[in-house]
Amino acid sequence: MSVMDDAARLRDQLGEELRARLRGKAKPVGSLGRLEDLAVQIGMIRGSLQPDLGAAKILVFAGDHGLTAEGVTAYPSAVTREIAKLILAGTAGINVLARAAGVGLTLVDAGIIEPLPPHDLLVECRIGSGTRNARHEPAMTHEECLAALENGRAVDALLDRENVGIVGYGEVGIGNTSAAALIAHALTGIDLALLVGPGAGVPARGIDHKRQVLSDAFARAPVSGRDRPTRALEALREFGGFEIAMMAGSMTAAAAAGRLIIVDGFISTAAAIAAIGLKPQTLGNCVFAHCSAEPGHRALLDHLGVRPLLELEMRLGEGTGAALAVPLIRAAELMLRDMADLPGEHPA
Amino acid sequence: MSVMDDAARLRDQLGEELRARLRGKAKPVGSLGRLEDLAVQIGMIRGSLQPDLGAAKILVFAGDHGLTAEGVTAYPSAVTREIAKLILAGTAGINVLARAAGVGLTLVDAGIIEPLPPHDLLVECRIGSGTRNARHEPAMTHEECLAALENGRAVDALLDRENVGIVGYGEVGIGNTSAAALIAHALTGIDLALLVGPGAGVPARGIDHKRQVLSDAFARAPVSGRDRPTRALEALREFGGFEIAMMAGSMTAAAAAGRLIIVDGFISTAAAIAAIGLKPQTLGNCVFAHCSAEPGHRALLDHLGVRPLLELEMRLGEGTGAALAVPLIRAAELMLRDMADLPGEHPA
Repeated sequence: MSVMDDAARLRDQLGEELRARLRGKAKPVGSLGRLEDLAVQIGMIRGSLQPDLGAAKILVFAGDHGLTAEGVTAYPSAVTREIAKLILAGTAGINVLARAAGVGLTLVDAGIIEPLPPHDLLVECRIGSGTRNARHEPAMTHEECLAALENGRAVDALLDRENVGIVGYGEVGIGNTSAAALIAHALTGIDLALLVGPGAGVPARGIDHKRQVLSDAFARAPVSGRDRPTRALEALREFGGFEIAMMAGSMTAAAAAGRLIIVDGFISTAAAIAAIGLKPQTLGNCVFAHCSAEPGHRALLDHLGVRPLLELEMRLGEGTGAALAVPLIRAAELMLRDMADLPGEHPA
Repeated sequence: MSVMDDAARLRDQLGEELRARLRGKAKPVGSLGRLEDLAVQIGMIRGSLQPDLGAAKILVFAGDHGLTAEGVTAYPSAVTREIAKLILAGTAGINVLARAAGVGLTLVDAGIIEPLPPHDLLVECRIGSGTRNARHEPAMTHEECLAALENGRAVDALLDRENVGIVGYGEVGIGNTSAAALIAHALTGIDLALLVGPGAGVPARGIDHKRQVLSDAFARAPVSGRDRPTRALEALREFGGFEIAMMAGSMTAAAAAGRLIIVDGFISTAAAIAAIGLKPQTLGNCVFAHCSAEPGHRALLDHLGVRPLLELEMRLGEGTGAALAVPLIRAAELMLRDMADLPGEHPA
């Protein structure tokens, strides 16, 4: 029997033991529904029948996009920095929702046009001052893309010292629904038109223009690498942004470190698809927080064959959906650890 | 203009001001989706543009049912007390989920067959040692029903001293999906067969029997009072249980006291329907936590014209769904209070 077979057998056995443990809890079998599936996933991620996920943190990756020069957004690039400043001030949507969920927060500057002053909540990982215009040229160089992935892994490594076992991935970046749509189209084959939506508020008449611009970008760079990792790298490089590539790198490292990854909305899911392209085993560590109102999100979730925990018609980004998912994950974790067993039934 | 017109006008004005305040927050308009509707409801309940809901608590009402003599349940009545003991020991499902959400918990003994010893988490409000068998006679007397409602109001009054503004309603009671189905059928007219499900685990072949027993009970007492409050009282008296009547009384008082009511699953929703029958204005204070896997629950939510926050296929009861909803409610509350306004836009 090979080492791989052995690992697979041990995983199957752990899954069975986790399900037996849940059956032995003091409640009708299966009566905690999807929380029970989540509990099994948590146990598998931590390799334990009594998993402890430690601390939770939301990482918000921020970056700017050269593609905004093409008029594909409702707001100018400068708004990226304004939102980042609100996050540092503690009054953006994600601050409020993270506080409500008792979750820590870090802002990662992956490449906003103008740098931010130093701040306790800020990690500076800038690859550049915004990406290039992907309609006409690659959003970043090969070296920049590799640096973004590497910085993402370095951001993940920072989580060790805070014992973070739950990491949510949010983002801020005017133009990043465009980059996310292109990456997702390249890596899933879903019709680009289906993946183009209003983002932060492009009016209906602007969406046709956004489709045309993204169609031009994809025609320039049709992403045809010979295998999945190559295509993932190519899509990130061609379409950006720095924040999406950095999220993808960070997600691959988080999975390798045994952290539970909370994927937020459309852009976070596109980053997860790139991360899964780079390292397929990343998928097993992902919990999908919610289905965004951005219309392409459901297509991506369906493509991955996953069901989100929440359906609240949100489309703010910043990791807001991920923050709301944390208490549900905690509930599943504590169920395995703290809930009484039925008398007389003690699973292996 | 009458006093009622005046009150309605003030309510409309507050609703408009709350919506304007949300439009002025630093995010795309409407981008927090259903959390924004929840925020408006919270503001209306508290009568404030910056509502403070204070503490949150789950009340778990426990009681036994004479109808279990008819073989309509998967477990014997003694299990009600076993679960109640687990709740007092801190290891039942609701303890774990309440802890995960940072919510306090109180168990109300409304009429378990055998009393429990005193305990810090226990409020003793017993109407009797279980209800009578509703297939053959009223589950309780008129006086017992009035006492249950009154005790429910008294339980609500206890919440004042802890400044509780969010109160979730859970229950424990072997046989109470039967009582809930009968009450709901009597007060909504939904086909009884649709409202009869497996509860805590009646096998498929047992559900036909459960339908027959409940059909007999309803034939004995077809609930035909002349107005809604009379019919609500009649349904509670005829079908029980003590815990459902006490929940209904407590909910009417909670609404009058300006508390946000979290309705949990099928039984909690039947209690809410009775409470709304007694006091129609109770509905405005209700947030529906989740849609249970108990098949009749969706029909009740549809009848009320409400959408639950969560869809996790849970069917444990005990207030477990209500506990999971608390962080979502907190997020909506904090959004109104703490999130930044857009510069230059200050709603009235």
